[in-house]
Amino acid sequence: MLTPVTDAFAADLRARLPEATFREMTPAYLEEPRGRYRGQGGLLLAPGTVEEVAEILRACAAARVGVVPYGGGTGLVGGQIMADGPAPVIVTLERMRAVRAVYPAENVLIAEAGAILAEVQAAAEAEGRLFPLSLASEGSARIGGLLATNAGGVNVLRYGNARDLCLGVEAVLPDGSILHGLKRLRKDNTGYDLRHLLIGAEGTLGIITAAALRLAPVPAATGAALMAVRDPQAALDLLALAQGRIGEGVSAFELMHRQGFDFLAETMPEIRLPWARAPEWTVLIDLGLGAGLSPDEALVGLFAEAEAAGLVSDGLIAQSEGQRAGFWAVRESLPLANRRIGAISSHDISVPLSAIPDFIAQAGPALARIGDFRVNCFGHVGDGNLHYNVFPVPGETRADHEDKRAAIKACVHDLVHALGGSVSAEHGVGRLKVEDLERYGDPVKLAAMRAIKDALDPAGILNPGVILRARG
Amino acid sequence: MLTPVTDAFAADLRARLPEATFREMTPAYLEEPRGRYRGQGGLLLAPGTVEEVAEILRACAAARVGVVPYGGGTGLVGGQIMADGPAPVIVTLERMRAVRAVYPAENVLIAEAGAILAEVQAAAEAEGRLFPLSLASEGSARIGGLLATNAGGVNVLRYGNARDLCLGVEAVLPDGSILHGLKRLRKDNTGYDLRHLLIGAEGTLGIITAAALRLAPVPAATGAALMAVRDPQAALDLLALAQGRIGEGVSAFELMHRQGFDFLAETMPEIRLPWARAPEWTVLIDLGLGAGLSPDEALVGLFAEAEAAGLVSDGLIAQSEGQRAGFWAVRESLPLANRRIGAISSHDISVPLSAIPDFIAQAGPALARIGDFRVNCFGHVGDGNLHYNVFPVPGETRADHEDKRAAIKACVHDLVHALGGSVSAEHGVGRLKVEDLERYGDPVKLAAMRAIKDALDPAGILNPGVILRARG
Repeated sequence: MLTPVTDAFAADLRARLPEATFREMTPAYLEEPRGRYRGQGGLLLAPGTVEEVAEILRACAAARVGVVPYGGGTGLVGGQIMADGPAPVIVTLERMRAVRAVYPAENVLIAEAGAILAEVQAAAEAEGRLFPLSLASEGSARIGGLLATNAGGVNVLRYGNARDLCLGVEAVLPDGSILHGLKRLRKDNTGYDLRHLLIGAEGTLGIITAAALRLAPVPAATGAALMAVRDPQAALDLLALAQGRIGEGVSAFELMHRQGFDFLAETMPEIRLPWARAPEWTVLIDLGLGAGLSPDEALVGLFAEAEAAGLVSDGLIAQSEGQRAGFWAVRESLPLANRRIGAISSHDISVPLSAIPDFIAQAGPALARIGDFRVNCFGHVGDGNLHYNVFPVPGETRADHEDKRAAIKACVHDLVHALGGSVSAEHGVGRLKVEDLERYGDPVKLAAMRAIKDALDPAGILNPGVILRARG
Repeated sequence: MLTPVTDAFAADLRARLPEATFREMTPAYLEEPRGRYRGQGGLLLAPGTVEEVAEILRACAAARVGVVPYGGGTGLVGGQIMADGPAPVIVTLERMRAVRAVYPAENVLIAEAGAILAEVQAAAEAEGRLFPLSLASEGSARIGGLLATNAGGVNVLRYGNARDLCLGVEAVLPDGSILHGLKRLRKDNTGYDLRHLLIGAEGTLGIITAAALRLAPVPAATGAALMAVRDPQAALDLLALAQGRIGEGVSAFELMHRQGFDFLAETMPEIRLPWARAPEWTVLIDLGLGAGLSPDEALVGLFAEAEAAGLVSDGLIAQSEGQRAGFWAVRESLPLANRRIGAISSHDISVPLSAIPDFIAQAGPALARIGDFRVNCFGHVGDGNLHYNVFPVPGETRADHEDKRAAIKACVHDLVHALGGSVSAEHGVGRLKVEDLERYGDPVKLAAMRAIKDALDPAGILNPGVILRARG
């Protein structure tokens, strides 16, 4: 049973931690992007060192006070917001934002958990290297949160998820002990992989305070194209064709439905739309090639073969870096446009690649049996990962459909589950999908997760209610 | 406290399992490649289904009988041999060797744990795909063991370790429950990553019975070259040059010392040696390129730039697939040649990439203070992973140096540890390196590992004494 933060507890901590650790609570720490959760008060702490994080966790473990680790606040499943239960300590990593070291010859960078993704990208770039993790919120998301949630993004196809870009972590475990795992090794088979256990555990098993990250060589030449594909199956066929011709040179392969372009036109007129009249399905292909290779030639050749095969009907190849950035601005603005329209229910799902056409074909008619909606389906089709978001028709608002939200979610998730997919592809479970995990998850997996949680965090202080239900 | 297999226990199992499960024990199950461990008797079981594995573990958990999971028997750290303690059940996965399905459009293959690596490679190839895991023992190593030990091999540079090639596992946990995790998903953030916990746990947390494996497109063209490099630093510089020019097209990058060629000449005259007189250091580079690209041109261009930079002095580019295979036969025969010479002590170590020259420069002189030895240093330099094996000088045998083995091992491992490296890069801990783990491992990591082991396997039945000391 957890206890709330008390004045006595706070006073005790003040005697043990530097003044700079204590921060005035502001609303920013109690909100999340979609407005589904609102945090309660509690004590806001901003430790400056791993030892201070350890001191905080030791105190919280002793007093059985809950701890909410806080990164950039960009999570979409409420993992950073504890709306109920005993008032917790919120530990923000924002003061631990140093890039401690870059080893260009090793393609390794050591960053603290509070480093913002864009800063890490820039630090790598300054040494002539690429940190390939990239997603819409990279200007505010922090490394610790990105690892805790095993973030995905647009380059997973080529470079993997966040976990694949991490060689080692420094972390504080629930008892306040410090795991010194900042290894810069490509191979290290010395026991259980605690790094991979902490990554994706969403702050429930430990607080990551720093990480050794993999870098990649910067491709010698980059390029991008938009192609109008016949349908989702054609998008998959185009992907196979592209990978067969260009191999790992295909860095990203994103699918967008016409609905997204319409939302952009409606809510973000400042975004320049590439098509005069958007086709039903558009693919954005991004290439990064080695020396002596021409992305333009590669894309022209790909388009020609795809057109001959009946997969694509139209295409735009970026003729400059600015035009390539423009294509990406379209893709990366979709989440904000969605937010301005206001989704009734958003779904971050994955299915086996070959099940994508089935999913899209079946989900629309199934939803139509619940009501009349607009669907914006887009995402990382090369990873089998779609953002399938359901909106009211013009003239209605999401508030008009609150009563249908549960049915919509169940409809989409049941279909995903039937197709062997996942109801949380890249956003994680947080507090939003705890019930989904109980409903769709393997009970054996859940029991093992619970056993691990209880073994490492017997008092249940770390991010209570995330992934697993908080103990009553 | 474990109990030995008894006749009554065996009789009880006979009533619960099909006759085909019971096998006559043969010496093959009690030996390992380097002859350092000899197993005791016990009961040999060869289950044919995951349910039979579950039945066995339920019985063993109830009776507190130890279980040794057995794959291909190729492990080098004694993980498959329980030499002492109460007689265990040995569970060989050899009857579960089916490739259950191949999904070429998804680049996924489902294999049972007993499938031999070469068979999985062939099944992928039959569908026009590549399963990139490749190592010297691929003709007998089995998928379950390869995953349990997170095997490495020669293509880690491009495709990652075994864990990076696995999308999901089916496994039986110590209580006999079946984890149904055979997902074919690229992204699935639904709780703790039990797949990554089981991979590398060397059969101490569960028995993997099947896996969903990642395939890759077959490169359109392959090529290989041997290059004589000035020294280990030049090898690293050559790697950076190669990756800058060719990107992910560099599939493998192996370093070999002249000593290996001398051992081959002495013990395996059937292996055709490429150099008339081997240089001190040779690098084997393997390329796999996309359509329209020429590996020959890429290697010629790489050599020219490397020669101009003073990195390489001589080079041989394979002019046929047969010659490429010949280069690889040299590399892959080194372990057998080593075995025929007879190492006093073998070390599978990794260090941060940039520390490789330091390690090699310091290890030789440090060993010379212990005695007069020959060293065969070779391995996956692109992964920072060297096999650093110490042999007697001609006219002496390893038996003459048994008394120095501990000192040699400590000398090498102390240096690796000081350089921030790992004393088990790819072979695992097994029973051989339990003490090393206690000596060099992070105590916080060890305590967390023990807590996880006790939580999932409270009776300690699974592979007792591997990674963690068996409970007394």
